[in-house]
Amino acid sequence: MKPHNFYAGPAILPKPVFQEAADAVLNFNGTGLSILEISHRSKEFTAVMEESQQLVKDLLNIPDTHEVLFLTGGASSQFYMTCMNILGSDQKAAYVDTGTWSTKAIKEAKNFGQIEVIASSKDQNYNYIPEIHGDCAEYRFTHITTNNTIFGTQYQNIPSLACPLVADMSSDIFSRPLNIDKYDIIYAGAQKNLGPAGVTLVILRKDILGKVERNIPTMLNYQTHIDKGSSFNTPPVFPIYVSLLSLRWLKSIGGVAEIENINSAKAGKLYQTIDDSKLFFAPVRNEDRSKMNVVFKIRNEELQDDFLRFSTESDCIGIKGHRSVGGFRASIYNAMEMDGINKLCDVINDFDQKHG
Amino acid sequence: MKPHNFYAGPAILPKPVFQEAADAVLNFNGTGLSILEISHRSKEFTAVMEESQQLVKDLLNIPDTHEVLFLTGGASSQFYMTCMNILGSDQKAAYVDTGTWSTKAIKEAKNFGQIEVIASSKDQNYNYIPEIHGDCAEYRFTHITTNNTIFGTQYQNIPSLACPLVADMSSDIFSRPLNIDKYDIIYAGAQKNLGPAGVTLVILRKDILGKVERNIPTMLNYQTHIDKGSSFNTPPVFPIYVSLLSLRWLKSIGGVAEIENINSAKAGKLYQTIDDSKLFFAPVRNEDRSKMNVVFKIRNEELQDDFLRFSTESDCIGIKGHRSVGGFRASIYNAMEMDGINKLCDVINDFDQKHG
Repeated sequence: MKPHNFYAGPAILPKPVFQEAADAVLNFNGTGLSILEISHRSKEFTAVMEESQQLVKDLLNIPDTHEVLFLTGGASSQFYMTCMNILGSDQKAAYVDTGTWSTKAIKEAKNFGQIEVIASSKDQNYNYIPEIHGDCAEYRFTHITTNNTIFGTQYQNIPSLACPLVADMSSDIFSRPLNIDKYDIIYAGAQKNLGPAGVTLVILRKDILGKVERNIPTMLNYQTHIDKGSSFNTPPVFPIYVSLLSLRWLKSIGGVAEIENINSAKAGKLYQTIDDSKLFFAPVRNEDRSKMNVVFKIRNEELQDDFLRFSTESDCIGIKGHRSVGGFRASIYNAMEMDGINKLCDVINDFDQKHG
Repeated sequence: MKPHNFYAGPAILPKPVFQEAADAVLNFNGTGLSILEISHRSKEFTAVMEESQQLVKDLLNIPDTHEVLFLTGGASSQFYMTCMNILGSDQKAAYVDTGTWSTKAIKEAKNFGQIEVIASSKDQNYNYIPEIHGDCAEYRFTHITTNNTIFGTQYQNIPSLACPLVADMSSDIFSRPLNIDKYDIIYAGAQKNLGPAGVTLVILRKDILGKVERNIPTMLNYQTHIDKGSSFNTPPVFPIYVSLLSLRWLKSIGGVAEIENINSAKAGKLYQTIDDSKLFFAPVRNEDRSKMNVVFKIRNEELQDDFLRFSTESDCIGIKGHRSVGGFRASIYNAMEMDGINKLCDVINDFDQKHG
């Protein structure tokens, strides 16, 4: 009996992906070789890379203005790579501070240009998405974190500004459709809603490159990876392959429009259960509640450890909240099935009835 | 029947590693969860990281002066990270040019300090290891590529200089003992002699950091990763786990002293077969022949494609030489068994008898 995995990331992947991935470790595509020992220049892996890039384009409706790259280093590396590549040292960029990861992005950006924090929800421990005032026309770009894994907030409407967006979508990419026209760069660590740890997805507008004057190391220049089909050096073969399996699964169930419906139903049911309980409450402002990371707390904090123990014993694991928020967090990415939601709701209801 | 895999990298791994890795994709350590969905902060993965670091230290006899990190970005990223972290813009570093990868390292280094190429074998298409004249006392460090995957050369004796070494050991780390005292930094992409693509091993002397004045992005500063036990951000969980399996295997067969004997026997037999043939020859200077990548050519070049076809049909795959050298290359890393060597020698002998 497999536990229901509510960890924030690395996180659950679609069920069929695990079996297909294990099979490929033993015999990839009938080659008799493991996916772990095939050359990244082989026709088999080239096909994996091309299909992965194409599926990202198809699923998110990405036109030829933008390129899809599979890099490494996580979102943490994109915090500086974005600015290094497109922000001149005399240019201004706007950042919205919605929590830990935004704060880190701001810190790294400051090495490369003039960074202004134009909105922040720090005053209420990041439990809402702050409003942007003005159209931001004076900035090279505005940076947002579309979903805040730790605090459980999410943009339900992406701002329309007079400058392009650069967005960290690590924890909600592929959870809903997006309008690529708004973005110069989208980046996402795979290990939440796409694949295993070890690969970073970058989608970027091609004509924004080559316009800053600084020296950029070859590996940190997006153009290097565009020119070489995301295989300038050895890419992380297995993490990309597992991401491909997960993208194929998403396509097979109807793509991002369909998963958005499913995600809304899952999050809706869980928040409703929390709202209906006596003991539990969700601290995030209603209209900014994340459909990926459901943060909730218990009114009687003495029962916190009891509930964690009870949920774990009931095969719902990974719901301890991040230390900067406390309480609980259920991460319910694309691969979490309604089955798991129902189980967690039962656990919440049972505990509420017993102690509420 | 599994083919004998002579690809240059990503490359063959020890046989038991594939089964153990596949098992962990379905159920890791009896957790009921896949290794692909466990948190990098879980006690299970923390144990993987710590055992991996400790095994590297044990196998290579690394004292507490040095730290072991599992990063990403490949050797290609170390080309600039090494210099960014330890070479002041007014300091000089010496580089030995032994082929494609050295050349790339030199190119990236030039962004950070005064780079002098103190020896090169370019004059003979890199078919030997050039001698270093002088003791290099005036340099911050001397950079060498210990094994040259493309050209099939390898330092059989590591130079003793008056300055520290920085070494790219991507394709021969763990193939033999090393004297860590000589090195400030050793780096290696995993995908040749350690694990699958997607993780990069860095071993570095701790007291060399914090001495250059430039701003270093957080993710590019080795100190960040030392301070956080190589888990500052989400590390590449699965590639590290597979590397651990491969390190355990190496320990189980007797470590680097034993594998050095095995590698010498394997390479010895293969070079002898080539030398004894009428048709084939090894272009690398005798004393610099690599024990990891055996480069050989055919005197009658019209037979080149025939031999490639014959070897592939005989279940020896991946022996086509790199385009910058031509001919053939058999990569015989730690995980290649004598069985595979014997098979390839039979193939060479059969072809030689028929056409020689």
